[in-house]
Amino acid sequence: MRVEQVRGSLVEAWHDVHVAVVDSTGRLLARSGDPDLVTYWRSAAKPFQALPLVEDGVVDRFGIGTQELALCCASHSSEPGQIALVRNLLAKIACSERDLLCGPHPPLSERVASDYATRGVRLTAVYSNCSGKHAGMLALARHHGWPTEFYTRLEHPVQQRCLAEVHRWTELPLSEIGTAVDGCGVVCYGLPLRNMALAYAKLAYAKLAYAKLANADFGLRSADSREGSSIRNPRSAIRIVEAMLRHPELVAGEGRPCTEIMQAHPGRVIAKLGAEGVYCALLRQEGLGVALKVADGHGVAAALALAAVLEELGLRPRPPSLTARPSVNTRGETVGELRVNGRLEK
Amino acid sequence: MRVEQVRGSLVEAWHDVHVAVVDSTGRLLARSGDPDLVTYWRSAAKPFQALPLVEDGVVDRFGIGTQELALCCASHSSEPGQIALVRNLLAKIACSERDLLCGPHPPLSERVASDYATRGVRLTAVYSNCSGKHAGMLALARHHGWPTEFYTRLEHPVQQRCLAEVHRWTELPLSEIGTAVDGCGVVCYGLPLRNMALAYAKLAYAKLAYAKLANADFGLRSADSREGSSIRNPRSAIRIVEAMLRHPELVAGEGRPCTEIMQAHPGRVIAKLGAEGVYCALLRQEGLGVALKVADGHGVAAALALAAVLEELGLRPRPPSLTARPSVNTRGETVGELRVNGRLEK
Repeated sequence: MRVEQVRGSLVEAWHDVHVAVVDSTGRLLARSGDPDLVTYWRSAAKPFQALPLVEDGVVDRFGIGTQELALCCASHSSEPGQIALVRNLLAKIACSERDLLCGPHPPLSERVASDYATRGVRLTAVYSNCSGKHAGMLALARHHGWPTEFYTRLEHPVQQRCLAEVHRWTELPLSEIGTAVDGCGVVCYGLPLRNMALAYAKLAYAKLAYAKLANADFGLRSADSREGSSIRNPRSAIRIVEAMLRHPELVAGEGRPCTEIMQAHPGRVIAKLGAEGVYCALLRQEGLGVALKVADGHGVAAALALAAVLEELGLRPRPPSLTARPSVNTRGETVGELRVNGRLEK
Repeated sequence: MRVEQVRGSLVEAWHDVHVAVVDSTGRLLARSGDPDLVTYWRSAAKPFQALPLVEDGVVDRFGIGTQELALCCASHSSEPGQIALVRNLLAKIACSERDLLCGPHPPLSERVASDYATRGVRLTAVYSNCSGKHAGMLALARHHGWPTEFYTRLEHPVQQRCLAEVHRWTELPLSEIGTAVDGCGVVCYGLPLRNMALAYAKLAYAKLAYAKLANADFGLRSADSREGSSIRNPRSAIRIVEAMLRHPELVAGEGRPCTEIMQAHPGRVIAKLGAEGVYCALLRQEGLGVALKVADGHGVAAALALAAVLEELGLRPRPPSLTARPSVNTRGETVGELRVNGRLEK
């Protein structure tokens, strides 16, 4: 599968895409390119970095709501409402914006960026697309009585706790998870696409298993009876999944691909981008996880590829904005388009 | 050869590079990937789109100077001095900015773009990086008595004249040159990298042959005595080469790769970028032409790759800014770098 930049009758540039589609047992159901490609999970790891908040009782202790929890899993657009929610969360844990160690950057939404530039809004740490995740990490530190300083460092218990969660969901030994510094300063994880997809599939499975068991009145504790499974407490996973499914507008923001994909298929899919061309998704009803990487890191190509993959897996149709992206020149003429070519191998 | 985005100990993304290095007879001296890759020449075709200005007597008729001629070959930075020169050229041919059909866009130089945004400069057509080329095309129309309207269209005699020049220098039959609409609205040309490199090598050869012959007092008319050569009038080519070599600061602008490469090796090299990861160069003393394409269109990767290729061909050292590009996160931490991996095959 590749995403092609077409101009006139020629493919002028192309973006190779590697894809892994797996179920919650780790079985590879479909692929493109190299499903074992090792790369950084980047922001697509956020749901798993937020899981300790539920698992360790942080959410209940501080009364963190589903909107705030969704923002902990988000690469948000820095919309005013999103910023207000992050500030709420900081207030609940008796932290301030000054405790956030993420660096500021122009909002990921062009509309919001342009609005703030016009109005001269000063972009502080809370405007980082990762400020929800950082606020969540501060909450985790507060809850456990760990220092709130230097929480971004690998050796800090917050990062060690997140790393343990990543280990659990990806089923990779800690020694096989690479670590580096992410764009916002926290630890990012290097691992194969197949394991990223497995983690998402297990999130989907937790939700699915819960729904089935709730119907059968089995109770939650036995929800994860599969042998060898590492879904220790499906209830925690379910709360993350529910928060994201309920608030697609907070997972990214108005007009951005994660939000558009989730809003096009309400309750059926979670889509989460990472930087440098990474995209992950879970299909709730199907119990599947998807991880893809555009080899050259092209973000728009990654979003188009994810929409195409999800369509192949049954989420039809793609949102119109993600079917193909017209190329418009400086005179306003449409001179080509960016589009997906190729399919999954099953 | 590829350009790698490294983070921590992993290559997080990569950009495949295709390269052709040829001499003026078309002999392939070095390569990487597919030297016959067909793509659009984009702005790297500008010296050949400017050649009719010299060849047809436009430059002499209107008193177009070397600075203005260099700008006709440029993807300039919209610097105030560059804009003033384009306006000069328009005045000389009794045209106005309103005759320019290029669309406006933010300056390619971030420094200039930020300065204009702060000062509220209204970006009209003359601020397009292609405004020199467009002014040159208007001059060509004026000279021949062709309409100045619709000069961007394929069927207009200006575009047909440029196409003929491209055919002559690339030695490709017209039927094998693809055409499409460029970012600024004029015709762009689809052809193999090898033929792009050939055209640049022939420009270099014209200059080289002239220098040798001038020393031997042979006179210009016999400068191109090689059998089968299509360098019909080396004097025209030499004037293009001289204008660009004399004014590297006009071929792009302060701090931009074409300018930095040319300034690092004064009089020895012309480097000209095109959009979507295309880069061309000529080595004057060596009589060589280079054409490369980053498959995914990444512009910074293309500049790093060109600097590496030129270094292999003897232009040492690379400008420091083009040796590797540090990746700095939102906290100001250096978390990786973009760097070239691999060499030419000879």
